[in-house]
Amino acid sequence: MNLSSSLLESAVKEFSKLPGIGKKTALRLVLHLLKQSEEEVTGFSDTIERMRKEIKFCKTCFNISDSDTCTICLHPSRKKEVICVVENIRDVIAIESTEQFNGVYHVLGGIISPLDGIGPDQLTIDSLVDRVKKEKSKEIVFALSPTIQGDTTIYYIRKKLNDPGLKYTAIARGIAFGGELEFADEMTLARSIRNRLPVDSYIQ
Amino acid sequence: MNLSSSLLESAVKEFSKLPGIGKKTALRLVLHLLKQSEEEVTGFSDTIERMRKEIKFCKTCFNISDSDTCTICLHPSRKKEVICVVENIRDVIAIESTEQFNGVYHVLGGIISPLDGIGPDQLTIDSLVDRVKKEKSKEIVFALSPTIQGDTTIYYIRKKLNDPGLKYTAIARGIAFGGELEFADEMTLARSIRNRLPVDSYIQ
Repeated sequence: MNLSSSLLESAVKEFSKLPGIGKKTALRLVLHLLKQSEEEVTGFSDTIERMRKEIKFCKTCFNISDSDTCTICLHPSRKKEVICVVENIRDVIAIESTEQFNGVYHVLGGIISPLDGIGPDQLTIDSLVDRVKKEKSKEIVFALSPTIQGDTTIYYIRKKLNDPGLKYTAIARGIAFGGELEFADEMTLARSIRNRLPVDSYIQ
Repeated sequence: MNLSSSLLESAVKEFSKLPGIGKKTALRLVLHLLKQSEEEVTGFSDTIERMRKEIKFCKTCFNISDSDTCTICLHPSRKKEVICVVENIRDVIAIESTEQFNGVYHVLGGIISPLDGIGPDQLTIDSLVDRVKKEKSKEIVFALSPTIQGDTTIYYIRKKLNDPGLKYTAIARGIAFGGELEFADEMTLARSIRNRLPVDSYIQ
């Protein structure tokens, strides 16, 4: 794309570095910003810059936070003894938006995946172990991706915690709501039959 | 969406103001930026801000430019006597990318559309008229949308220029490459039959 302005060209280039944004979309976004007032555009760029500079990670659960401890960990009515282990921040947001979980989180920062070069040491597993001991946790809820890597991570953490008094649970796996039975893979279908539920708990 | 950080929340809000960016996409973009280094994010925000503050409009053709005259108007090998009239900057970029036009442009900043409250006075028509007189133009190429508003604008400008010595042309309208004849609207098909071309000029 040959643009008549190098300022425009570099702005388009910056936008097209973002995931899922091609050159044409980037140009549309930049031309949109060009139509806005200077104040609005300064507001946009300042907010982004400030976010990157000032955002912190919660020292307890590694969720993103404005201060050293995130609002979820600080919340008085959340059950500190139930810890939901997730891969990343996006998963925290997804679970929070269901409004079905009243415990706290632990963000691993990834899952064990030798093929991608991610071992247990790169994740926040050690601080999870410390935390569980210190906080006298009662239940660990694993909300990890239903993949071999996810299962490996669950297995590893469980072994590392090595506490028979703890209750270990994992989010239910099965046919997704609206999904068609005939297109489900064998493993999912097998699991969902094995872990069948009483109909009363099903329809809620 | 309930995020644990107000910094993150305002960044997501800023991104979702952009056209075609919903809350989920905005969150993905923000989390991507969060993973980048501080320098990279500062580079991103500074580029956007600088672009908005420093970009200018060419005093001759109203195209965007880094200085008072755009690179197209300054280019020595472009034919100044052939002016292509377009609605907006995006159209300049689209035509430039075809590499088929060697004249200069005139960006109207819109087309006459009484329903949207856009009259000729809000467009750069007066300065086009001055320019044509001053620069002794030979041809005006209308590259406007093939709509009633586009046709009205062509009619108005032609009347306003009121110069029988000028050659007036408009981009060809017809069945788009790859388009199916049976689905073309009557008006387009009628025009494309009326303005049929010798096959030799067709296949190039």
